[in-house]
Amino acid sequence: MTKLNVELGENSYEILIGEKIFCEVAKFIAESNFTKKILIVTDSNVFKIYSEELRKIFTKCEVNFEVEVIPAGESSKNLREAENLYTCAIESQLDRKSVIVALGGGVVGDLSGFVAASYLRGIPFVQVPTTLLSQVDSSVGGKTAVNHALGKNLIGAFYQPKKVFIGVDMLKTLPEREIKAGLGEVVKYGVISDADFFSYLEENVEKILSRDLEVMTHIVKRSCEIKADVVSKDEKESGLRRILNFGHTIAHAIEEETGYEKYSHGEAVAIGMIGAALISEKLGKVDSASVARLRNLIERFGMYTRVEGCEVDKMYRELFRDKKTINGKINWVLMKNFGAVEISNDVPEKIVKEVLSKIII
Amino acid sequence: MTKLNVELGENSYEILIGEKIFCEVAKFIAESNFTKKILIVTDSNVFKIYSEELRKIFTKCEVNFEVEVIPAGESSKNLREAENLYTCAIESQLDRKSVIVALGGGVVGDLSGFVAASYLRGIPFVQVPTTLLSQVDSSVGGKTAVNHALGKNLIGAFYQPKKVFIGVDMLKTLPEREIKAGLGEVVKYGVISDADFFSYLEENVEKILSRDLEVMTHIVKRSCEIKADVVSKDEKESGLRRILNFGHTIAHAIEEETGYEKYSHGEAVAIGMIGAALISEKLGKVDSASVARLRNLIERFGMYTRVEGCEVDKMYRELFRDKKTINGKINWVLMKNFGAVEISNDVPEKIVKEVLSKIII
Repeated sequence: MTKLNVELGENSYEILIGEKIFCEVAKFIAESNFTKKILIVTDSNVFKIYSEELRKIFTKCEVNFEVEVIPAGESSKNLREAENLYTCAIESQLDRKSVIVALGGGVVGDLSGFVAASYLRGIPFVQVPTTLLSQVDSSVGGKTAVNHALGKNLIGAFYQPKKVFIGVDMLKTLPEREIKAGLGEVVKYGVISDADFFSYLEENVEKILSRDLEVMTHIVKRSCEIKADVVSKDEKESGLRRILNFGHTIAHAIEEETGYEKYSHGEAVAIGMIGAALISEKLGKVDSASVARLRNLIERFGMYTRVEGCEVDKMYRELFRDKKTINGKINWVLMKNFGAVEISNDVPEKIVKEVLSKIII
Repeated sequence: MTKLNVELGENSYEILIGEKIFCEVAKFIAESNFTKKILIVTDSNVFKIYSEELRKIFTKCEVNFEVEVIPAGESSKNLREAENLYTCAIESQLDRKSVIVALGGGVVGDLSGFVAASYLRGIPFVQVPTTLLSQVDSSVGGKTAVNHALGKNLIGAFYQPKKVFIGVDMLKTLPEREIKAGLGEVVKYGVISDADFFSYLEENVEKILSRDLEVMTHIVKRSCEIKADVVSKDEKESGLRRILNFGHTIAHAIEEETGYEKYSHGEAVAIGMIGAALISEKLGKVDSASVARLRNLIERFGMYTRVEGCEVDKMYRELFRDKKTINGKINWVLMKNFGAVEISNDVPEKIVKEVLSKIII
């Protein structure tokens, strides 16, 4: 087991990375001073794979648990489903020392994290992320949310889990597209803060795509470390944390314009990173060779480098609806070099539109 | 203007107590570095009284504002109404530096506080409490919440306002029952931490009932001070803060059993305090003369000392559904003397039931 600490003062917590992770979860709860009644939230896909193992291990450890299975997919991430989970929590008589366990990808984690943050004004929360994306991204940093009919993640809370358990062997069961969905964020960590890590990814493309456990353990760990480091310095996203948004300003617009179906979040981020890199190049912040290296790695991972079905002007307008847009100014994260980015809220409309037209097929 | 500081580290804020408070609110927002677009949430009763004054003052200070009027009453405090406010916030394009202003009583404050806490994972929040109850209780301490069909305040967040503006002259417009609703909590502060304040209340019953501004300013200020002091020492209700729950364990059961209509929260608290005092007397913690003094003050304020329409066994069961009940143990706040209470989770069922039968007509 590899351990990692996310330093957030009294909200600090540990990330455990390894195999056969359910035993660790059950042991943690059995040995803690939490109420010995937990609510496991999972989705229909994940439940199919792990229901037997779950039942066996938690029963053996004498942890009393209820499982609530939500429909798989982004459409479950809303206030209706949150209300359903509050009802489950009340009916299961969860009190302020009971634990909600999120077993699944980002949707399960974000939704049940928000419910844990707001049920009785906050009860303990444990994450067991099962997808690469949630392992390297949403399980670190305490962002929880549900969607509103008018936009994604507009309702939520900053709420840290008590512990995160990452089972790298779970990655073996994922469809290929889910792996790619996570690789967008992994590549991002290399760009924003670790040139060596970017090189490591370039050198291990095949092993990553075949999910070699040793290599996956390293990339999950290094990604979590980088994110944890940024989050530790800026829990509530008032400054530094914005660098994690590299590629995301355009990605959110892509997802919004294409209805969140055609491109996964990670795929949208990959295209968004190329867009942000191209803007950086036009502003003279980075050379064209680096942009080419970024595009090349994204291609080798089998991800899209351009988007289909978008339109420049509509996408441009969409950019202003980002949560990081303050007083009508977009906060761009721009690339300076591998391992270094900077924030600018002063990119001319003309440059943005030129770049958008380049990344749209 | 009287100022009071609520010490909560980086969440500290100021309470301003005085007359003609809208000018202060408008000035605060105009001079701050918040986005100059605010959303004022109020209810239909309050809006009737203040809409003209609001418009005049905020327009004069060049603060761009939207007003959302919710139906008056507890039934507005739910996720549906919260969702409606999220929609207003999105449509008004509030960003992370925009302010939500709660103008009204506890329902408006709790609901819009929860929306401010969760919209974009938290935006600035300002309280302008208009009822005695919200001025002395819900506007201090950062508890926000909405109700669930299965229970009150089960969904919420601890979220501190940027500033609280208390207009004591607003109390003049309140119906008499609303004054009584607040006095329950005011009496509580005397019991849990200030014997002199309890005596002050005994000496000023008439002036309080006639809403003498000088006396009201003192009782609002002293109540806020006591609550602020407790909350400063225990923001998230892990220990000391529980003493604020004096009278509330039974009060919640009364409200639940009588459908939240017959007795206001303050009235239920008054009866609940008598119940808690009687339990304390039976356990030998307080003498009967003190219990009589408490009952006498409650009577002089014209509040009920017993409840109609409840049944001992049903009420007893209801006690276990309190948010402060951990692992099936009720945390009772018991009276030792005026100005001193203690917590006990070990009161025999028999004693509780005997006392319940005494406070039920």
